[in-house]
Formats: sequence, structure tokens, C-alpha cells
Amino acid sequence: MRLKRKDLLGIEDLTRDELELILSTAASFKEVSEREIKKVPTLRGKTVINLFYEPSTRTRTSFEIAAKRMSADAVNISVSTSSVVKGETLRDTARNLEAMRPDCIVVRHASSGTPHMLAGFVGCSVVNAGDGAHEHPSQALLDMLTVKEKKGTLAGLKIAIVGDIAHSRVARSNIYGFTKMGSEVTVAGPPTMLPAGIEKLGCKVTSNVEDALKGTDVIMMLRIQMERQSESFFPTVREYSRVYGLDETKLKRAKDDVIILHPGPINRGVEISSEVADGPYSLILDQVTNGVAVRMAIFYLLLGTAKEEQQIQAGKV
Amino acid sequence: MRLKRKDLLGIEDLTRDELELILSTAASFKEVSEREIKKVPTLRGKTVINLFYEPSTRTRTSFEIAAKRMSADAVNISVSTSSVVKGETLRDTARNLEAMRPDCIVVRHASSGTPHMLAGFVGCSVVNAGDGAHEHPSQALLDMLTVKEKKGTLAGLKIAIVGDIAHSRVARSNIYGFTKMGSEVTVAGPPTMLPAGIEKLGCKVTSNVEDALKGTDVIMMLRIQMERQSESFFPTVREYSRVYGLDETKLKRAKDDVIILHPGPINRGVEISSEVADGPYSLILDQVTNGVAVRMAIFYLLLGTAKEEQQIQAGKV
Amino acid sequence: MRLKRKDLLGIEDLTRDELELILSTAASFKEVSEREIKKVPTLRGKTVINLFYEPSTRTRTSFEIAAKRMSADAVNISVSTSSVVKGETLRDTARNLEAMRPDCIVVRHASSGTPHMLAGFVGCSVVNAGDGAHEHPSQALLDMLTVKEKKGTLAGLKIAIVGDIAHSRVARSNIYGFTKMGSEVTVAGPPTMLPAGIEKLGCKVTSNVEDALKGTDVIMMLRIQMERQSESFFPTVREYSRVYGLDETKLKRAKDDVIILHPGPINRGVEISSEVADGPYSLILDQVTNGVAVRMAIFYLLLGTAKEEQQIQAGKV
Repeated sequence: MRLKRKDLLGIEDLTRDELELILSTAASFKEVSEREIKKVPTLRGKTVINLFYEPSTRTRTSFEIAAKRMSADAVNISVSTSSVVKGETLRDTARNLEAMRPDCIVVRHASSGTPHMLAGFVGCSVVNAGDGAHEHPSQALLDMLTVKEKKGTLAGLKIAIVGDIAHSRVARSNIYGFTKMGSEVTVAGPPTMLPAGIEKLGCKVTSNVEDALKGTDVIMMLRIQMERQSESFFPTVREYSRVYGLDETKLKRAKDDVIILHPGPINRGVEISSEVADGPYSLILDQVTNGVAVRMAIFYLLLGTAKEEQQIQAGKV
Repeated sequence: MRLKRKDLLGIEDLTRDELELILSTAASFKEVSEREIKKVPTLRGKTVINLFYEPSTRTRTSFEIAAKRMSADAVNISVSTSSVVKGETLRDTARNLEAMRPDCIVVRHASSGTPHMLAGFVGCSVVNAGDGAHEHPSQALLDMLTVKEKKGTLAGLKIAIVGDIAHSRVARSNIYGFTKMGSEVTVAGPPTMLPAGIEKLGCKVTSNVEDALKGTDVIMMLRIQMERQSESFFPTVREYSRVYGLDETKLKRAKDDVIILHPGPINRGVEISSEVADGPYSLILDQVTNGVAVRMAIFYLLLGTAKEEQQIQAGKV
Repeated sequence: MRLKRKDLLGIEDLTRDELELILSTAASFKEVSEREIKKVPTLRGKTVINLFYEPSTRTRTSFEIAAKRMSADAVNISVSTSSVVKGETLRDTARNLEAMRPDCIVVRHASSGTPHMLAGFVGCSVVNAGDGAHEHPSQALLDMLTVKEKKGTLAGLKIAIVGDIAHSRVARSNIYGFTKMGSEVTVAGPPTMLPAGIEKLGCKVTSNVEDALKGTDVIMMLRIQMERQSESFFPTVREYSRVYGLDETKLKRAKDDVIILHPGPINRGVEISSEVADGPYSLILDQVTNGVAVRMAIFYLLLGTAKEEQQIQAGKV
């Protein structure tokens, strides 16, 4: 099976079947990174360009490692050191890159919708590695994989997403993803960080984090952008931490077998206490490991050929 | 066949036979980038260092992709983040890199002649990826390949190169290249951008762009460095565009089957109108595609071994 | 044989047997870089992350080339463009990288002890590529290899290390290494650059460089950090050069078959004259070549598997 689409731009676009296909494929690729020889020849001769308009070592490194473990060639372009500063339009950048015949462009950009525009400009695959406050689909997929591994299913689970919902592409992609898979999602945060109308995405909304945590199966804490404090979305870091941060006291409101996610990098003592981040319920590092597997699956499902598909099915890879 | 030279430093040095060898080799490698598996094992175990003292995402990416499609290992060094800032001389940098046994150093530098100096310091191959206002040979080769593909031959063609001739390594390399191949080259631009004595390279010179375009087979528009405006080489961007920019009106002076080139990135509405850049005569994106093929050919012709040559001739690659 | 340790953090930790194992393995890998196809499949499917918190083109390039010649995948992270600036702790960075399942993290950091902390946080191998003024073990190993190649043995040799001993990780690693191998090490420099108690590492100390050079087999000149001059460790560059710089006059005090090392990049005319740096006793470029071989050996001895070991022993690689 392959994804019957050229691009992976957001979770909003994907069907439940597509989500399940990506998650099951990722689960099967996860084992590759545990081998002595962490590499399959599946995407040999494919070219992946990582086009990052915002710095993000973690995400870029994860995509780069995923590409290399699939035997693809990875080329990194970070835009601060790029000809794009010369004022070239996105369309021209896109079509010029396409003319070098990449198979996939992975793009991170501060403006919502950039990957979609890019995808319209080029014939090759485009993967959204985070666009503004819009979507970060590979992050949501790795979150879903992490929960599914632990809980067996996503259907019927209660998921609480806590923090700056308004500015979070991670929250948005996860709301789409988990609700499609049958989970019940509640978002919580300071009123200034809860965007109007977010409940239309199918989630519950509350500014009372203790309500959100009550009886929940999964807690996803979002990163507070410390540099946004001056915009006064919240009074002080200490105040934010006291009211909205996850510590062992608040954790008691959740189910006994709750699991805790965070997209990283964490601000210890701000949105999450060190005891909780490093405690037995935290799956923060599993998320990172699953990130590589999810990205291998995305590359495979977008770029793999029929021939390779047969080899995979025949267990030859 | 191989190039019987260690380095590719400029078009000025090359014979017509050498130009033809590179162009025909590039034409044969072009197909590799259109395959499902865009990779040949030809240069496996070779090391290519991209040493860029000026940022240039496009050119660096093109060389990097070309190296990887030939199965060479590519190592990028961009000098802003480099120990070269510690004040090391070019000679010491060169000899230190050489001591790591690369097979080829691709160098971009703001000073004319740097690649030639570098080539004198090292035993490995050196490829000039642009030096000051001097030469940019791989650009001229991809331009020639693009014209040859469309016109069948370069002999007898009329070529107009329009813009800031004085500061353009692209113009200079193309004047050398096209005149050697039997084309008739005319350069045009504001008098302040026409260097004294440029006609000694074998081209005609005019400050009347409409004269230059009259009956021409190929128009090559050069990029205006917007940041140079303060140096008052031209009064205003609007004025430059009106007099020297290529639009559909001026285009009518050329032959009916004219083709249009631009080294990119383009300034839309400055040296070229969007209608023309995106119109049916523009081969700007073909140039980018041909850039990868030309650079694969350059690596092959400089680094390939006799054994690999036989395999190529036997059709085994 | 493999190193029976997870990490290579410093020469201080290594036994003489371990030093000899690394040196003999490096000597055997040196030949790979002289082949037409400079690559062995030994570490295919291994992932090496170069995590550089200080820029160092030379060292990063050497590790990257070494990894690629062993067929490992190399991923570069330079921290100025990194999420680490977001305030993540070293422990979190380390454990997040580890979660992507690299086989080795090569780390350069301005603070002494960072590689050791990192090694404690992760299960994969860690290689110290220079930590503050503490150690730079791969540099000392390439220095030892260079001397051993020329002199046949290190035992009984007189080694003079001259310059800013106090701030030099290169000096420290070399003092440990050469004394373990039975050499007699003397360090020399201005009194302000000789750290109290350095003789406890087993070397002699003098502020009289001419004494240090007398009858010596090996001279290792250290780089003067020109930017430190304002801290007034020495009065003027000219004065430093006159008293402590190596020129042909001072060189006469050494043995007739003396060899000269420098970790690079050299300040010509400051700590070493051009005549001496480029003269017949200088092995500065051999050091760079040996650097790649030493790093290939380090990767092999830390990451190679039993199966690969057998192949090496059977001469099949």
C-alpha cells in the first residue's frame, strides 16, 4: 500500500484509514533503528531536500536520519544562509528546487500555509515539517504512534492537551488526529491562549487545567515560548507554572495508568516539573524515537515504488 | 574519454573539443535524474568538498546533488562558520583540506582568481563555482547545454547578453563559451555596466538593448544586484527596468523561436517581466535541471577512472 | 580487537595497550584514504552525529570524512543554529539525540567535562572532539601516530611542547599520551601560560624555550589565540614571537632529525616562522592526513561489531 496522495501537509486532510496506514507502517519501520545495521535500501537513489526557514535541529535531524536510514540522499538547506534572502519568491524557490529533481521537499516555515503553496508549485512530494501556528503533522503522527503503542488503541481514550493552544501547530494537528481516531480531546490553558472557535475542531475546551486532567488517559503538555512572555499572554512564568504546569499533585487527577507527552524541548519547572518529565508516566523520549520511525514511514509511503512495495510485502527488506 | 586536465577553472582555458566533450557527457548524464533510482555508482568512494566563501544555496545544492547522484561523498564547508575566520591563509586552508585526501574541491569565492590559486596549492581537482566578477564555468556550460538541446547547435547562433556585464562572471564565462562554439555574442547594458575592452573577448558591445535583441536566437538576461543601486550604476530600478528589462514588447525584436535564459534568482519586474520569465520562450528551469547534469559530467570527467570509463562505454552504468 | 569501553573521552583514561591498539588500527586504515575508492563498508548502517558547540571546520570535516569513508551516515549539528539555544539542558539534548538511535555522538564544547557528562547521559558511544582547556584526544592520537610513523617508536623520545600550555587541551592530551608511551615531555611557554602543578602530569616545565628545545626529537608548537592578547598573557605578538616562536635559529638547538608538529591552524610568523612550517622537518600536513585515519580507527574500535572484526582479520575489508 501507498498513500494515494503526493504530499503530507496536515492531519486535517487525512482519513482515518490513511492515519492507520502511516501508524502501522511506522510501527514496522521502528525495528530498523534497533538493528546493528540501521539501514534499508528501500529509497536508494531518492533525493530528499530539507528546506528549513526556521531553525529546528531536532526536527531536521529526525527527518535527515529517517531519510538516510531509508538510503535516500538528504540535502539540507537552511534559509538564513540561503539565496532566498536575495528576495526570490517562494514559487521561484520551489520551482528551482524542483528542477533539480528531488523526490521530496520537507519544509518548515513560520507562515501558515507555506507547505501547501509549495506543494502547488511542484510535482514532487512535499512534507510539512511545521508551518506557523497551523499544522505539524509528523509530530502528531509520532504522538499518536506513542499512545497507540502503550494503549493498544486510540479509540475511546481521553486526551488532555495543555498550554498555549492558540499558537500551537502541535495542538492543532493532534486535535485533528486523535479525534479522527476516536479519542476524546480536551484542550486547556489560560484564556488568552485558547483561540476562539477551537471547539469546532471537535475538542472540548476549558481554562481549568484540573478539570481537563480529571480521569484522562493521556496528558500532552505544550512548550511555553518563553520569549512570548513580554506579549503578556500570562503574567509571570512562576504564575503560569503554578496554575498550568504539570507537577505530581496535578498528575494525581489523571488515571492511574496515564501517559505524558511533550513535543520538546521541555522547559523544566515551567510547563512540566522535572519529577514528572523524568517520571514513570513520561514517554517523552519514546516520542523522539517514534519520530524517526514515523518519518521513515512518511518517506516510504510517499516515495516508495511498486517494486519496493512488493519486496517489503515479501519480507525482503 | 576524460578531460586531460586536473581542474575546471574557467571557460577561457577550455578548447572547443573540451567544451563539446563536457556538453555531450552532460547530455548523457541528464537521464539519470529522470530515473526512479537517480543514482549511478560511478564515483563511489570519491570525496567532494564544497568550499563556499560566499553563500549560494542554489549552486551548492546543485553540486551536492550532482556528487551524490554519482555516489560520491559530499562534504560542505561554508566559511562563515569556519576556522578560516581564524586568519588562516588560503594556501594553508587548501593544503590542510588536501591532506584529508578529497578528490575534488568545489570553490566559490568573492575574489577573482581564488580557484586558480587554490588549484596551484593542491594536487586534487578544483572546480570554480564562481570567483568574483571573473568566471562561473559550470553556469556557462549549463547555459550552452540548454541552448544546444533546443537549437541543435551553437554555431551561427546570435546570442544577446543583457545587464550588468561589468560585474558578471556569468556573462564573461558565456562570452568565452559561446564564441568558442561559433556563436555570435552581443552584450548590452547601461554604459556604466559595460566594461572597457570587453569586445576583446570576441563579442559585440552596445548600450542599446533593442539593437542587441534584434533578430537574436538567444537572450540571456543577467540578474541586477539590487544592493548595488546605491553605487549609482543606474538611476532607479524603474528606469533600469523600462530601458533594459525584458518585457513582451522588447521580446518582439528577437527571432520568432528565440529562447530566454537567466542564471537566477530572477528579480521579477526588474530585469525580466513575469510574463516573459514564465512564458513559452523561457528555459530558466531547464537551466537548473541541466546544472545538475553538467556538474555530474564535470565530476565524472575530472574524477572518473579508466575502469569506470570502460564500464560507461560498455553501457554498464 | 575492540576497545573495551563505550566512549573515547580523554587520553588520561586510556591504558598504554589501548593507545597502541588505536595507533596500530589507525595505521592500517590510513591506506584506505590512498585508494582510488576511498571507502570500506565496515560501518554501513551506523549513524554518527557531530555535535559541535564551537565552530571547528577542520575537526568536524575530519570526523565527517572519517565516518563517510567507513560508510557510516554522518549528521552534523552546529549549535548556533540549534534548538539548544532554546535553553534545553545538556542532559535533555543528549537523551533526545540518543532517542534517535545514533551509534556515536562526537562532541566539541567550550566547557571542560561536557563530553563526560554527555557520555553519562547516553548509552551510545561519545567521542570528545575537544572540551575547553581539558582534552582533545583524537588530536593527541594523530600526533602520536605521526611521530610513531617517523621515529618507529615513542619510547625514549624527547618531546617539547611550546606555547600557551595553560589553555591548551592539545597540550594536556599529548602530555598524557606521550608520557604513557614512554616519551619524556617538556612543556615551555611564558610563565603566565604555564599552569601551576602541570608537572604532576609527568612532564618537565620551563619558561626557557631554548632549554626545552635542546636535544629534542619532537617539537610541538601550539597555536596562540590572538584574541587572548588583550588579556595580557603576553606583552605583544612581536615579543611573543621573538622569545617563544620557532624559527630556524631556535630550531638548531634540537636534534638533527627533529620533527615539528602543530595542531593548526598556524599563525605564520607568530608561534612558527613560515620557513620552519614549510621546511623539511615539518609534519604539519601529515598530522591532518593522520587525523582522518585516527578517527576512522576510533569509530571502528568503538562501533565495529564482532562480525566486522572477523572480516577485518580475514582481510576481507
